[in-house]
Amino acid sequence: LVAITPLLFVAANYAEGIFPLSEISKLDLKKAGLKIKTSEVYNPNGTSLVDALVRVGGCTGSFVSNEGLIITNHHCAFSSAAGASSKENDYITNGFLAKDKSKEIQTPIKCRITASYKDVSKEVLAGTENVDANERATIISKNIKSIEEAEQAANPDLEIEISEMFIGKAYTLFRYQQIKDVRLVYIPQRSVGEFGGESDNWVWPRHNGDFAFFRAYVGKDGKPAEYAEDNIPFTPKKFLKVNPNSVKENDFVFILGYPGRTYRHRPAKFLDHQNDYILPTVSEWYDYQIDAAKQVSKGDKDLEIRLSTFIKRRANVTKNFKGKMQGMRRTTIIEDKKAQEAEMQKMIDADPELKKKYGSLFSDIDEVYADIFATQKRDYYLSQLYNNGAFYLASFIAYHSNAIKDLGEEEKKNYLNEFMPKLKEVFERGYTITHPKLDKMLLQQLLEYMRALDKNEMVPIINQQFGSDADISKALEMAENQDFFNRDKMLKLYSKDPEKLLNIDNPLVKVALQTTDLYEGLAAKQKEQDNTLTALTAQLLEVKQLYSKENFIPDANSTLRFTYGHVKGYSPNDAEYHAPFTTVKGIIQKAQSSGDYYLESHIKEILKRANQKSVVCLLYNLDTTGGNSGSPILDAYGNIIGVNFDRATSATINDYAWNEEYSRSIGVDIRYVLLIMKDVAKADNLIAEMGVKM
Amino acid sequence: LVAITPLLFVAANYAEGIFPLSEISKLDLKKAGLKIKTSEVYNPNGTSLVDALVRVGGCTGSFVSNEGLIITNHHCAFSSAAGASSKENDYITNGFLAKDKSKEIQTPIKCRITASYKDVSKEVLAGTENVDANERATIISKNIKSIEEAEQAANPDLEIEISEMFIGKAYTLFRYQQIKDVRLVYIPQRSVGEFGGESDNWVWPRHNGDFAFFRAYVGKDGKPAEYAEDNIPFTPKKFLKVNPNSVKENDFVFILGYPGRTYRHRPAKFLDHQNDYILPTVSEWYDYQIDAAKQVSKGDKDLEIRLSTFIKRRANVTKNFKGKMQGMRRTTIIEDKKAQEAEMQKMIDADPELKKKYGSLFSDIDEVYADIFATQKRDYYLSQLYNNGAFYLASFIAYHSNAIKDLGEEEKKNYLNEFMPKLKEVFERGYTITHPKLDKMLLQQLLEYMRALDKNEMVPIINQQFGSDADISKALEMAENQDFFNRDKMLKLYSKDPEKLLNIDNPLVKVALQTTDLYEGLAAKQKEQDNTLTALTAQLLEVKQLYSKENFIPDANSTLRFTYGHVKGYSPNDAEYHAPFTTVKGIIQKAQSSGDYYLESHIKEILKRANQKSVVCLLYNLDTTGGNSGSPILDAYGNIIGVNFDRATSATINDYAWNEEYSRSIGVDIRYVLLIMKDVAKADNLIAEMGVKM
Repeated sequence: LVAITPLLFVAANYAEGIFPLSEISKLDLKKAGLKIKTSEVYNPNGTSLVDALVRVGGCTGSFVSNEGLIITNHHCAFSSAAGASSKENDYITNGFLAKDKSKEIQTPIKCRITASYKDVSKEVLAGTENVDANERATIISKNIKSIEEAEQAANPDLEIEISEMFIGKAYTLFRYQQIKDVRLVYIPQRSVGEFGGESDNWVWPRHNGDFAFFRAYVGKDGKPAEYAEDNIPFTPKKFLKVNPNSVKENDFVFILGYPGRTYRHRPAKFLDHQNDYILPTVSEWYDYQIDAAKQVSKGDKDLEIRLSTFIKRRANVTKNFKGKMQGMRRTTIIEDKKAQEAEMQKMIDADPELKKKYGSLFSDIDEVYADIFATQKRDYYLSQLYNNGAFYLASFIAYHSNAIKDLGEEEKKNYLNEFMPKLKEVFERGYTITHPKLDKMLLQQLLEYMRALDKNEMVPIINQQFGSDADISKALEMAENQDFFNRDKMLKLYSKDPEKLLNIDNPLVKVALQTTDLYEGLAAKQKEQDNTLTALTAQLLEVKQLYSKENFIPDANSTLRFTYGHVKGYSPNDAEYHAPFTTVKGIIQKAQSSGDYYLESHIKEILKRANQKSVVCLLYNLDTTGGNSGSPILDAYGNIIGVNFDRATSATINDYAWNEEYSRSIGVDIRYVLLIMKDVAKADNLIAEMGVKM
Repeated sequence: LVAITPLLFVAANYAEGIFPLSEISKLDLKKAGLKIKTSEVYNPNGTSLVDALVRVGGCTGSFVSNEGLIITNHHCAFSSAAGASSKENDYITNGFLAKDKSKEIQTPIKCRITASYKDVSKEVLAGTENVDANERATIISKNIKSIEEAEQAANPDLEIEISEMFIGKAYTLFRYQQIKDVRLVYIPQRSVGEFGGESDNWVWPRHNGDFAFFRAYVGKDGKPAEYAEDNIPFTPKKFLKVNPNSVKENDFVFILGYPGRTYRHRPAKFLDHQNDYILPTVSEWYDYQIDAAKQVSKGDKDLEIRLSTFIKRRANVTKNFKGKMQGMRRTTIIEDKKAQEAEMQKMIDADPELKKKYGSLFSDIDEVYADIFATQKRDYYLSQLYNNGAFYLASFIAYHSNAIKDLGEEEKKNYLNEFMPKLKEVFERGYTITHPKLDKMLLQQLLEYMRALDKNEMVPIINQQFGSDADISKALEMAENQDFFNRDKMLKLYSKDPEKLLNIDNPLVKVALQTTDLYEGLAAKQKEQDNTLTALTAQLLEVKQLYSKENFIPDANSTLRFTYGHVKGYSPNDAEYHAPFTTVKGIIQKAQSSGDYYLESHIKEILKRANQKSVVCLLYNLDTTGGNSGSPILDAYGNIIGVNFDRATSATINDYAWNEEYSRSIGVDIRYVLLIMKDVAKADNLIAEMGVKM
C-alpha cells in the first residue's frame, strides 16, 4: 500500500477512535496492550494484517486461510444463502456446508480489498473558491468524476473511488482490488445464526452464532474474473491466524473494518434535528407500520413470513433510533456541542479577520436548519405519502388526467397511444402494493398525521378533503372498491384501457393533483439545503481546526478503519451490570420451541452436552458502527478471536459521539464459532484449513 | 394472641419459607441474623411485632405510630384516592397530603388485625370418613359455616374466618379485630408512586415510590365503628419504629404479611395443567385483548384512559404468566415433583397397608386431570364467550325466544309481562359492553379460537355456522347492525318491546341456543372435579407426611405469615447481574416527559438536586406472593426499613416453588419514602409522628 497522509489527519490523544490507516502509526498501541509492532498491523511499504481485510458487500470480512477463505457474519451471507435455496434445499433453515470446494455455491456477492490510497482534496476542490454553494457542489462532483475516470484509465484492473473524509473539505482516492467470484462455503442454521432474532437485536447479553464463510476466487491468471467453474481460489497477501483460546476480560483487542457512517463533525443543530424530528418522527411512524403489519398477518403463517422482512427492517431502525434518543437524554452530547460552538463563536468574534471570514457561520447554519425545521414533518409525511402504492396510483391518475383534460379528441388519442405505453415501466416501478389491507392502513395513518399537522405545516387540500376520520375512511373504502389496492387489476386496466384508468376519480386523486408540485419541489429544495450545509460544514471544520486543542479524525465513510480497546462489561442502567462474556448456559436458558429463541432440538441437545460455561459472545468498548459487521476481532498478537456483528442499544449514540460508559460492541467469540463448526456442522475440513487443532 | 399449634406444622429445616405464626419460634433466626429475641417478633402470650401488622383490603400494612398511622403501598391506596378525587382535586395525578388529622379523607377500605387463632381441623372434618368426594365437600362447607357462626356469636366484636391450611386436610379458625373507619392520610403523585408503570411491572431494577399512608379510626369507646366524624385514632398494641438508615447488601431482613395464594402442595399434574394449558392459553388470549384494546384506543386520549385499567389488569397477569413459563423452562420443578411422586408410589407399593389405602391415589389424580385436559381449551373459550356482552345478549335471546316458541298467544303475553320484568336485573348485569369495536374484535377472536379447536374439543354448531372467517365477519357485521354492541339501544328495546328483542335472529343466537346446556354444565362439572381433587389432595398430604424426610408448611392462604432472608442481588440471566439497591440516578436515567416513565418536572428537579446515590428500592431473597403488597420490610432489630410491593419476573414461580437463584422480592426503601415525604410532599407532620429526625 502507498500511503500519503491526507491534510487533516493529525496525531495522538484521540477521544474517539475510528482511525484511518494513516493514523495507526501515530498511536501508542503498545501502551494500550498491543504485543506486536504497529507496522505488523499496517505497513504501507509491506505486508500487514490490513491485507487480510476485505469488504464483503456492505459488510467486512477477513481472510482466514491462504486459499481465500473469508469469515464474516451470518447476516452478511443471509441473502446469498436465501438466493441459493429452494424448497428442497433450504439452506436458511438447515444451514449449508460445502464439504469440499467443488460443492461451494456461486453468489452475487462482490468483494473489494483496499490496495492503496492518496489525498486528492486539492484536486477535488480546485475552482471552488468564491462560488456559491450550489455551484461549488456541481464543481466538486465534476472534479471527482474526472479524477476517478483518469485514475481508472491508468489502473484498469482496480476499482477507483474517491471518498469524502471531511464534508466539503477533504477527499481521499482509494484503489481497490476486486473479487468478482465469491462463493458460499458454510453458513450455520438460522436457529444458530439468528438465535434471538428481533428480540435480541441491539441487545447484550447476546447468544447468536452470527458467522459464515465465503471463498474468494480469481481467474486462472490470478486476476479478478467473473464466476467461472475453473476459477481458482484467491491467494491473499495475508490471512489471519485463529487463536482458539480467545481472550479474557480486560484484554486488549482491535478491529479492522469498513464502518459505514458517523455524524460526529456535524454542527449542534444537526443533533437537534435528529433528536427533535428525525428520531421521534421516524420511529413513531415505523412503530405504527410494524404494529399494522403484525396485525394484518396475525394468524396467517404465509403472510407472516412474507411480511417478516418488512417488519425486520423497520424494527432494526426503530430500536436503533430509540437507543439514540435514550443516549441523547442520558448524555450531554448536544449541550457539549452547543457549548463548544459558543466558544468558537467567541473566538471568531474576538479576531477581526476571523470575524470577516466566519462571522456569520453559525447563524448561517441556523438559518438552513430553521428552513428545514419549518416544514420538516410535512415534507417527511408527504414523501412517505407518495411512497404509498395506492397514493402513487392516485398521483399518476391526477397528473395524466390533468394533462389530457384540455386536449381535443385527436390529441388525447395520441397522448394515450404514444405517451402512455412509454410510461409503463415508470408506472410499474412506482406502483407497488405490499399488502392491500396493510397499505390501506398505512395510507389512512399518513393522512391522519398530515391532517393533524400544525397550521404552519398544514397542506390545505388534505384538510379540505379529509375534515374528519370518516372522510378518510370513506375515501379509502372508495379507493378499495375502485381497486386501488389491487395491482393486478389496475395494471391490466392500464394496458387495456388507459383512458378508463385516468377517469377514475376520488378524493385521493384530488389531493394528489394539488400536492404534486409541492412534492416534486422537495428534492430540489433538499438538494439546495444540502449544498449550503456542505459548504458551511467545510467552514466549520476550518474553525474547529483553529479552535480545537484536541485533534480529530474523519467520520466513518465506508473506508478501511482501525479501532482498538478492551474486552469490557458495562452498566447499561442503574443497578445493572452486564459481564463481557456470554455462555452456552444462556442459550439453554433462552431456547424455546418457536419464535425468536427457536433452537433446533438436535442442536439444543448438542449444546446441553457441551461445557455450559463455554463462551458464546463477547463485549468490548471499541468504536464501531454499521459496516463493521463481519469485522475480525483481533487479540494483542493480531490473531482473530471473534467476529464483530452488533452494538448494544446504548452504543447507537456512537453515530453521534463515542462514550466510554455506553459504547459497547458485540461479537461472536471464536470458541463458539469452532464449537458449532465441530459439533454441529462437522466442518472439520474448514477447521483444518484454518490451521486449528481441536 | 392465643396460639395452638395446628396438627401439621412441623419444625425446622424448611426449604421454603412462608411460615405461619406457630412456626416462628422453631426457627433459628439468631443464626440467620436476627438481633432481637424471636419472642419479640411473635409472642402468643404478650405484645410483639406481629401486633403492628394489619390487613388493608387485599394488601398488608403496618402501624408506624401510636395514633393508628398505617404505611402500605401506593397501589393499595390507589382506588381510595381515585374515589376521593374530582376534576378539581385530582389526588391521583397530584397526590394528597393531609396536613392535619381533620383533613384526612374517608375511604371504603376495611382493615383487620389478627387477634388469635386455633386449629379446627378435627371439627371441620367431622363426619367425612367413608363418604364420597362430593358429599365430603358438602359436609366440610356445612361444618365450617356452623363453627364460624358459633364462634361469631361468642365474639360479636371480632370477625371470624376459618382458613384451609392444607387442602381438604387442615383448617384454622382466625379471630380478627376489625377497623371500619380507615382514612387516607398521604399518597404521593402518580408519577412517583407508579413510576415505570406497566413497563416496570414485575421488573427489577425498579424505581417507584410505591407507598402511601392510611389512619385507622375507632369509636370514642375504642371499639370498631363505621366512619363518624368524631371517631378517634386507633391505638395499636404495637407500632413499628423506623430505621431511617435502612440496611446494606447481605443484611438480614424479614417480612410479616398476608400472602394470598401459593400452589406448592398440589400434585405434579397440577403443574402440567398450568404449564401446558392455563399459562399459555390465558396469556395468548390476554395478549390478544391487550393488543386489541391498544389498537382500538390508539390516538383517542379519552378512550385510552378508559381502557387503561382493562389493559393493566391483563398485562399484569400475562407478564406474571410468562415469568412462570420461563421459570418452568429454566428450573426442574415439574421433573422434581414427578420424581418425588414416583418415589412415593414406590413407597406405597412396597407396603400392603399403604397400597390398600393409597394404591390408586396417583392414578386417580391422573384420571381427574385427564378429564380436565380433554376439554380444557373448549371449556375455557366457551366460558370466555359467555362473558362477552354481545354473546351474552345472543344467549339471552336464544333462551327466552326458545321458551316462548311453543306458547299460545295468551301464555306468551303472560311470559313477557310477568317474567321478563323480573329478569331485568340479571340482564343488565350480564350484558356489558366494554367498547363496541373492542368487544366485536374479541368476539371474533374467540369464535376463531373455537373454530380451530382439535376435533375432540370442537363444538359442532360453531364450525357449522362459521365455516370460514368470512362467516364470522358477516355474522358480527349483522350483529353490529342489529345493535348487539349498543347496550343503550338494546336495554331500551328490552323494556319497551321484549318480544321484538326476542325475535332478533342471527348466527350468534343459533350458536347460543345449542351451547347453553354445555355452558351451564361447566360449573357443575368443575365443581365435581374440584371436590374429587380436594379429597385426593388431602390423601396426597398424608402420603407426603409418611414419605417426606423434609418438613413442610402450608401454602399461603391470606393468613398472617412470616418470611426471612437477606438483601441480595441476583443473576436473572446469563451474563447479567442485578445489584440489590437502585438509586436516584436511575430515576433520572429513566425519566421522560410522557408515558410509563413520566416524571413531573418539578419532582425531577428536586431529585436532580438530591444525592444521586441515594437509595430508591431494594431487592431480597424472601419468599413472598400477592397479598404481601404493603408488607413492612424489617431489619435485624425489627425496625421498618421499607415496604414490599412486587417480585422480579423470575420470582413468579414462587407460586409453585421457591428458588434461591430466581426468587427475589422488591420493596421501596424507607430512605426514598422519607426523601419524597420531606423534599417533595413536605410531610414534616408525618415524619415527626413516626419519630424520625431528618
